[in-house]
Amino acid sequence: MEVHQDRHTHASMSPARIETLADGVFAIAMTLLAFNLAVPIIDPSKAVADLPGELEKLLPNFALYAISFVVLGVYWVAHHAQFRVIDAADRTFLWINIVFIMLVAFVPFSTSLISRYWYVPIAVQVYGIVLLLIGGAMYLHLSYAVKDHRLIPATTPDELIRLARRRILVGPVVCSVAILVAFVSPFVSIVLYALLPPFYIVPGALDRLVFLREARV
Amino acid sequence: MEVHQDRHTHASMSPARIETLADGVFAIAMTLLAFNLAVPIIDPSKAVADLPGELEKLLPNFALYAISFVVLGVYWVAHHAQFRVIDAADRTFLWINIVFIMLVAFVPFSTSLISRYWYVPIAVQVYGIVLLLIGGAMYLHLSYAVKDHRLIPATTPDELIRLARRRILVGPVVCSVAILVAFVSPFVSIVLYALLPPFYIVPGALDRLVFLREARV
Amino acid sequence: MEVHQDRHTHASMSPARIETLADGVFAIAMTLLAFNLAVPIIDPSKAVADLPGELEKLLPNFALYAISFVVLGVYWVAHHAQFRVIDAADRTFLWINIVFIMLVAFVPFSTSLISRYWYVPIAVQVYGIVLLLIGGAMYLHLSYAVKDHRLIPATTPDELIRLARRRILVGPVVCSVAILVAFVSPFVSIVLYALLPPFYIVPGALDRLVFLREARV
Amino acid sequence: MEVHQDRHTHASMSPARIETLADGVFAIAMTLLAFNLAVPIIDPSKAVADLPGELEKLLPNFALYAISFVVLGVYWVAHHAQFRVIDAADRTFLWINIVFIMLVAFVPFSTSLISRYWYVPIAVQVYGIVLLLIGGAMYLHLSYAVKDHRLIPATTPDELIRLARRRILVGPVVCSVAILVAFVSPFVSIVLYALLPPFYIVPGALDRLVFLREARV
Repeated sequence: MEVHQDRHTHASMSPARIETLADGVFAIAMTLLAFNLAVPIIDPSKAVADLPGELEKLLPNFALYAISFVVLGVYWVAHHAQFRVIDAADRTFLWINIVFIMLVAFVPFSTSLISRYWYVPIAVQVYGIVLLLIGGAMYLHLSYAVKDHRLIPATTPDELIRLARRRILVGPVVCSVAILVAFVSPFVSIVLYALLPPFYIVPGALDRLVFLREARV
Repeated sequence: MEVHQDRHTHASMSPARIETLADGVFAIAMTLLAFNLAVPIIDPSKAVADLPGELEKLLPNFALYAISFVVLGVYWVAHHAQFRVIDAADRTFLWINIVFIMLVAFVPFSTSLISRYWYVPIAVQVYGIVLLLIGGAMYLHLSYAVKDHRLIPATTPDELIRLARRRILVGPVVCSVAILVAFVSPFVSIVLYALLPPFYIVPGALDRLVFLREARV
Repeated sequence: MEVHQDRHTHASMSPARIETLADGVFAIAMTLLAFNLAVPIIDPSKAVADLPGELEKLLPNFALYAISFVVLGVYWVAHHAQFRVIDAADRTFLWINIVFIMLVAFVPFSTSLISRYWYVPIAVQVYGIVLLLIGGAMYLHLSYAVKDHRLIPATTPDELIRLARRRILVGPVVCSVAILVAFVSPFVSIVLYALLPPFYIVPGALDRLVFLREARV
Repeated sequence: MEVHQDRHTHASMSPARIETLADGVFAIAMTLLAFNLAVPIIDPSKAVADLPGELEKLLPNFALYAISFVVLGVYWVAHHAQFRVIDAADRTFLWINIVFIMLVAFVPFSTSLISRYWYVPIAVQVYGIVLLLIGGAMYLHLSYAVKDHRLIPATTPDELIRLARRRILVGPVVCSVAILVAFVSPFVSIVLYALLPPFYIVPGALDRLVFLREARV
């Protein structure tokens, strides 16, 4: 710790509890996504005959549940990844995190909205705006931490930061396109959201660099 | 840590935060199970007379709450047990975990469904399919981690891994049978689900081996 | 750790993750208590005039919220206190904990029930039975851990264990009385539940002993 | 630990699990705030035309969500900050914390209430009373911990404590004014609540002092 005090003159907080709070909000938001799925209400005498059809109608909702869950997973992994490098925190950084989790906590609502009104442009756009803002908060989060190596070790290679920045921007760019596309076709817009996670999940240049860097340590 | 870097060339993440997120989702999913139990709504003037009967009608729901809670407990213990051996993580492993907790977060919905439509084959089958997929994710989780001792210490005995594998498979096998049985009798199918936890709870050969191994350390 | 392996031959699990899961369930169950409080629905044009009266009607619900919250607080503190002595865990102990948190997760339901039907004996009794079972699980939890110093250090004084046992039993005894009293007067029964927390909150002989013991260390 | 035993003769508990429970309740309360936002129900055939207008009607609810989230963020940061100095805990302190989180868990209800009845004085006042009580609990929390350096290191400068005390009092003072103002204008009262977070977020004299103190260590 003494070593950090020396280096991070603005840092006066531990990043550990921020991670705990963020993990809590992620866990709850993820679980509440499924809680929004309502069990269909059918007359008991017709349930055996009608339930299969009613569940089939829920298939788009299940798909949107999975998309939102995996998108939140992507952001959780990204947050996780940033904190592997960030080793200090200050009050401004704390508030960037609180705004970030405020947007994360909003995802169950926007998922509910898009699940019910997947054919309505504004619903699909609200969903995209929330994701766009989350991506923006992630970018700000990184930018603030790395500025002059404020909250990261002096030894972090610039190449790693540059790649991380570029990587984060993909989300907001795709969401911006999807928001515009929704005016024409809400369905194509949803497909774009669904393509986001695969892009992030496939291990990329960034991971190789992280590995190389750690191998060198 | 340096020791691990040497060994796990693909590993670049800490397993600790995965456990935190998973524990959070387990805790919430477990608590929401009970939240799905709706208090019966009765006319206040008749409540003294009618409430006992209304609560009696909820007895199957209470039983299904207990079954789901204990089944989630079984999987939590299994997840816990795997992480006692796994000492590293990489991006693929992270995503296996995210899919795993996505399925766990789905259990309150499938429990709600089976509680309301315990006499409908498809409801009992959806419940079983979710458990089957959770078991499958657990198996994949283990297989990925142990492959070439990717995320486990080189000293982990093969016997332990072989027993763990066999143990995990019991769940999916029982669920597969229960899913088929539900076509004929949803009730027998539910009894099969209820038998799963006792099987796992009774300490078995695996625990003895873990104990032996640790005693040797 | 090696020291424990020597001592606790049955213990093969870490108590830390049990505490994490239990803390999660306690936190959620506590927060959901308040979530059960429904905002009164009034015609907007009459809200200014009628809301004060509607909120007044909720006062008993607020009181029952506070009682349940504080009772859960008591059990959380007790669980916390036991884990300050317990330093190992095995599979049976894990399952006692899972049953314990299953009962804790049930408290929002029983609180909802008693909030709506505080004048109905069976509702007041169900509330008491849940608390009785939680107390029983706590007692079993302690008894299992201390038997032959299974999961506690050999140096734990018997006097401490004897006092802890006696202290835990007060809850189930008071609840048993309250359950019987509810046949005659549900209101008196609720007063008895409300008296439980003050009994536990006042620091007693046990704390003094814990302090003495630690002072000696 | 032995060092603390020496110093804090009343302290017999670890502050770590208190923080875990509090973080859990904060995370859940924050996420449930958004869960209270109900997706508008519109006839599917009119959704494309009517959804924009319906979402516009929700704008005050979104604003109140953001205010409550940020206010909870303020209190979480304050709680966090106190625990950076507090290094011990006793039973009384534990109970101050339980009352504190009981009030925090109440915020989703009071936010729901003010969201629906933002034009009704009593709703705006209940919201303020909850915040006032949370601020009071924070003040008690600090006062109890610092009294005779009960739960803080002997080296903590008095200047730091004095500034922290003054800082905490701002919340209750603003809330008291807002509660009175609500009799005349609920809207102005809400504006006052919205002004609270900016006051706390701007780094102040306290942070500079914390920094100086740590720089000296």
